[in-house]
Amino acid sequence: MLPILELVQEELALVEAKLCGVSEQAYPPLAAALRALLDSGGKRLRPALTILSARFHPDPDLDAVIAAAAAVEMLHTATLVHDDLIDGALLRRGNHTINASWGLGSTVLAGDYIFAQAAAFAAETGNPRIISLFAQTLKTICDGELRQIFGQLNWEQPEEEYYRRIFSKTASLFAASAESGAVFSGAPETGVQSLRDYGRYLGMAFQVVDDVLDFTGDEEVMGKPVGNDLRQGILTLPVFYFLQSYPQQRQRLRALVEGSDGDDGVAQAVQMIRHSSAIEAAREGARGFIAQAKAALRHLPAVEPRQTLHELADFVVERHL
Amino acid sequence: MLPILELVQEELALVEAKLCGVSEQAYPPLAAALRALLDSGGKRLRPALTILSARFHPDPDLDAVIAAAAAVEMLHTATLVHDDLIDGALLRRGNHTINASWGLGSTVLAGDYIFAQAAAFAAETGNPRIISLFAQTLKTICDGELRQIFGQLNWEQPEEEYYRRIFSKTASLFAASAESGAVFSGAPETGVQSLRDYGRYLGMAFQVVDDVLDFTGDEEVMGKPVGNDLRQGILTLPVFYFLQSYPQQRQRLRALVEGSDGDDGVAQAVQMIRHSSAIEAAREGARGFIAQAKAALRHLPAVEPRQTLHELADFVVERHL
Repeated sequence: MLPILELVQEELALVEAKLCGVSEQAYPPLAAALRALLDSGGKRLRPALTILSARFHPDPDLDAVIAAAAAVEMLHTATLVHDDLIDGALLRRGNHTINASWGLGSTVLAGDYIFAQAAAFAAETGNPRIISLFAQTLKTICDGELRQIFGQLNWEQPEEEYYRRIFSKTASLFAASAESGAVFSGAPETGVQSLRDYGRYLGMAFQVVDDVLDFTGDEEVMGKPVGNDLRQGILTLPVFYFLQSYPQQRQRLRALVEGSDGDDGVAQAVQMIRHSSAIEAAREGARGFIAQAKAALRHLPAVEPRQTLHELADFVVERHL
Repeated sequence: MLPILELVQEELALVEAKLCGVSEQAYPPLAAALRALLDSGGKRLRPALTILSARFHPDPDLDAVIAAAAAVEMLHTATLVHDDLIDGALLRRGNHTINASWGLGSTVLAGDYIFAQAAAFAAETGNPRIISLFAQTLKTICDGELRQIFGQLNWEQPEEEYYRRIFSKTASLFAASAESGAVFSGAPETGVQSLRDYGRYLGMAFQVVDDVLDFTGDEEVMGKPVGNDLRQGILTLPVFYFLQSYPQQRQRLRALVEGSDGDDGVAQAVQMIRHSSAIEAAREGARGFIAQAKAALRHLPAVEPRQTLHELADFVVERHL
């Protein structure tokens, strides 16, 4: 557990127990795969966000909060299983992905099962608003991922398309995580919206940093290769900023990424961007989102969780993993 | 629409309109694919079952019934998208499957999106029992499909394993379709259970007939090749009955299916089974489930929908498509 999440360690332990329970009931090979996935060092940022968002008022519905927190983590886990399959990724956090060991069919079905479990946890909250929020969020995530695939190697797409994509694929779930916790705390609707905004901006920053780390990260620390996005033709913020700063390099970059040199070309393109000002510019973009996340907290009660959410925002933008 | 479903044609039209609405909101390429899938001649058996099950009492919650009916059809549609991808099937009902036109990634995500839409429809009912039932049913379906994959070419599996698999992958959703309609009709719990039993037995019969048609079907009528199951190493009821009747053919059958002749060997195996008594025995098995389905209706009010459910049971076992 991240030290900054100490405030909610008891609730996180309840979530963990709930997640464990699933892998005990499932078909044995699936249970083992799910267990390995849950044990592989995820930071549990999303459930922590749900729990912290529930702690701005004295008497949250704890059972519902824990169920919602388990639902967001399960939904996130399911998307990882399908993303790794789609990307052909063999490693995540230094461990083999499910698709590295299993065939296509069982990997697709494992992800579907985990989605279903997320829906089951959401249903446990008994709150139609939250159940509907989860379903809509999954639609939004899929929509974002589909746009990403259909936008591969589209060098003409506007920067806004990038923000739309990362809202859909990442920030929407952070927003839903915060919103569900706030709803079960009995917060007034303005408070719910403030926490939802915090989650959304935190998620935007999180994904921008992820996209920067795909250029600058240490493969040993990350437990996966860098340059993944560009290898798949996915254009992220560092690429947009690079092209804006060095328009004369546009053709060269395209040729490296799309050319016949394959991974070598991509590696050269990664180096070009990694050593350019685009990286710092993208980090600055992430800091902008973090500032907006913090601003969203301003009108909330000045309780301890608010301080933790501040620290979490700083952590997200400064992390190297 | 099947003529026997005339009694519920108005409600089915409402379901159809609801399904149409989805494809209008989605990302355009996905919307087009979903539209094609929904227009490709599905019989809407599951939503019809929901609606008919809701009509045993005078005042069902129509909005909830329609939402639940749309949810079961969407859930079914999502499983088709992933099944076709997993099976590598290029045709369904004579039309190209999504995976025939799109890559792996977009097909996985299209299925995920349709699952999410099913969850959104289930959430619209506002009934936590039904939402939970849908989530559990999706888990059961995935569990069944995973068992099918892990059981491929396992010639030692007991016949019970077959029944377990077809309950999971098919009958569980028929059962949930009937149960949800019954719940929204305000039926007493015994009535809900009777209709759930009817749905379960109908689903078992439906899948046995599907498995028979995979040996005996006319490719022109079916719009897809026969022998699919055996080609994938999936052992269905005709295979179990064949092995029971002709134990001395066991090695020959295995050699044909697993041997180096590939599709030719499978085609010979299909012919062996097709012309054996195993086909009629399996059809008789389906009739047994149909008799159980009808028996489950015995204590329900003798209203018009009961007659339609009787006819539907006969249709399911006598169909050729």
